[in-house]
Amino acid sequence: MSRSVRVLLLFLLLPVSAFAQELPAWNDGKSKQAILDFVKKVTTERGADYVAPEDRIAVFDNDGTLWTEQPFYFQLGFILDRVKALAPEHPEWKEKEPFKSILAGDLKGIAKSGERGIVELAMETHSGMTTEDFRKIVINWFSTARHPKTGKPYNEMTFLPMHDLLDYLRANGFKTFIVSGGGEFMREITDKAYGIPPEQVVGSTITTQYALVDETPVLNRLPKIDFVDDGPGKPVGINKFIGRRPVFAAGNSDGDYEMLRWVMAGQGPHFAMIIHHTDADREYAYDRKSDFGRLDNALDEAAARNWLLVDMKADWKKIYAFDQ
Amino acid sequence: MSRSVRVLLLFLLLPVSAFAQELPAWNDGKSKQAILDFVKKVTTERGADYVAPEDRIAVFDNDGTLWTEQPFYFQLGFILDRVKALAPEHPEWKEKEPFKSILAGDLKGIAKSGERGIVELAMETHSGMTTEDFRKIVINWFSTARHPKTGKPYNEMTFLPMHDLLDYLRANGFKTFIVSGGGEFMREITDKAYGIPPEQVVGSTITTQYALVDETPVLNRLPKIDFVDDGPGKPVGINKFIGRRPVFAAGNSDGDYEMLRWVMAGQGPHFAMIIHHTDADREYAYDRKSDFGRLDNALDEAAARNWLLVDMKADWKKIYAFDQ
Repeated sequence: MSRSVRVLLLFLLLPVSAFAQELPAWNDGKSKQAILDFVKKVTTERGADYVAPEDRIAVFDNDGTLWTEQPFYFQLGFILDRVKALAPEHPEWKEKEPFKSILAGDLKGIAKSGERGIVELAMETHSGMTTEDFRKIVINWFSTARHPKTGKPYNEMTFLPMHDLLDYLRANGFKTFIVSGGGEFMREITDKAYGIPPEQVVGSTITTQYALVDETPVLNRLPKIDFVDDGPGKPVGINKFIGRRPVFAAGNSDGDYEMLRWVMAGQGPHFAMIIHHTDADREYAYDRKSDFGRLDNALDEAAARNWLLVDMKADWKKIYAFDQ
Repeated sequence: MSRSVRVLLLFLLLPVSAFAQELPAWNDGKSKQAILDFVKKVTTERGADYVAPEDRIAVFDNDGTLWTEQPFYFQLGFILDRVKALAPEHPEWKEKEPFKSILAGDLKGIAKSGERGIVELAMETHSGMTTEDFRKIVINWFSTARHPKTGKPYNEMTFLPMHDLLDYLRANGFKTFIVSGGGEFMREITDKAYGIPPEQVVGSTITTQYALVDETPVLNRLPKIDFVDDGPGKPVGINKFIGRRPVFAAGNSDGDYEMLRWVMAGQGPHFAMIIHHTDADREYAYDRKSDFGRLDNALDEAAARNWLLVDMKADWKKIYAFDQ
């Protein structure tokens, strides 16, 4: 075999990652190194911490972890727009809370109801239609709605370093899942936005019911919560939908606290990270007192529990793909 | 380039399926041809019926579709063994139904309670422990329990032609899921038995609750049904867990009726099949009057609804891998 053929074959056999810089939108430092070290450790065959590919399950919160959650959860933006769109058919909403606050633009009042309250509001405004009709409304909303600060479509408000992380984990045999308080709403964009297909999105669910309409089967969305995937609901949701304990988990708020603890209590190696929003210039800076994505207990305990605390301002070269 | 190198390269570029005979455990005939025709149609790029790879979702009932369900659902065998194992701690069961029937070996009495009754019995006997403890019990049971007719481990009682079908669909870009009335029980063996990982198993679920035991997080299984994935629950479960409508569905009983109708009502091409148990010698022959896997309405309507009715006796060369 000639030398050039040998070189060519060698080139073809090398993994792509050997050529691409890993986690390019992350600054070099402790956070990036901790991720690289963990992945190297669990993918080193015959190493003490080797994890078989089928057990390489990684879970990511969505709001505030994969995309921005300020000045309000994006799904809440969707809900506000739905309430406004439906208001002409509901004159009684002018006097009825929380619709009254929404129509008056009083975000603080809505925020006080917490993630659970917002899920309930979602159930209220997103029922009374089939699953197919709901999909169309969501897809249409994403194509027209814009973020109030950046003017960008919401599905572009995703964090470039987290894309890098998803790509890097997948290149190393991980299967990536979203585990979020949000619901079916997310499923319409996660594949395009993150390469995560709908069946790898664990979220809050509304009750649906099979029915025949003119002999055509449909699923009707009922105004009834089926499952709230937040706080202690996250490990429950992971067990229900995925059926095994992840080895990698990322979150950014107290709503992820139980998920991170449960993942870290697994046998064998495991990794947990919290995205700390520290960058008021490029994104937002908030933690203990935020209405959305409050980070308090989880911030207190991160160091003692060996959860990586990612400092957005220091650790990330870029926030969004559209950043200069 | 030498001729031998060119031949070698050509060989490497050809898909594996070009060399393997498709669906080898199926007899040539209408059923096999219908499957081949459908898959060819939806995978032909630029064809009128082309389905993008991400939409190639195939769902399979488990009991009676992928493995045997006689003389009783295998999960019922597990339940019976659990009741017997726990009976010494529950002297009151000797006088209490349905435990009394179980301890007396009265299968007919249990069967009359239907799939829902069995799910409830599963909830009753499979709660009061953590998810980890439950896994261990299931894994241990599969390693020791044997089918009463064949003497084989239950996880070997799977249908070879259905393995072929799963392989064939996956080789053509389909993602395969189980959608079954059974619960977490199945998840411990589906990866080894069918190459279907736990996160691609949609089933009935028990309610679990996050708790700390000596500061260690666990999920406790409560004696409460969360979701029954049977009949009209199957399309509901598919929507909840998978989040999109499959294009291929296989079942064998009236419990699959709504799933098949919902899949066939999707836009674009779709395919539904029913396994008809017609082989008393090699497996079992039953349909309208069976206590387990009753096939009645779905049998009446199969032809009119263009569902492929697979005749096990005529269509399958072999039933099990261990058959001579």
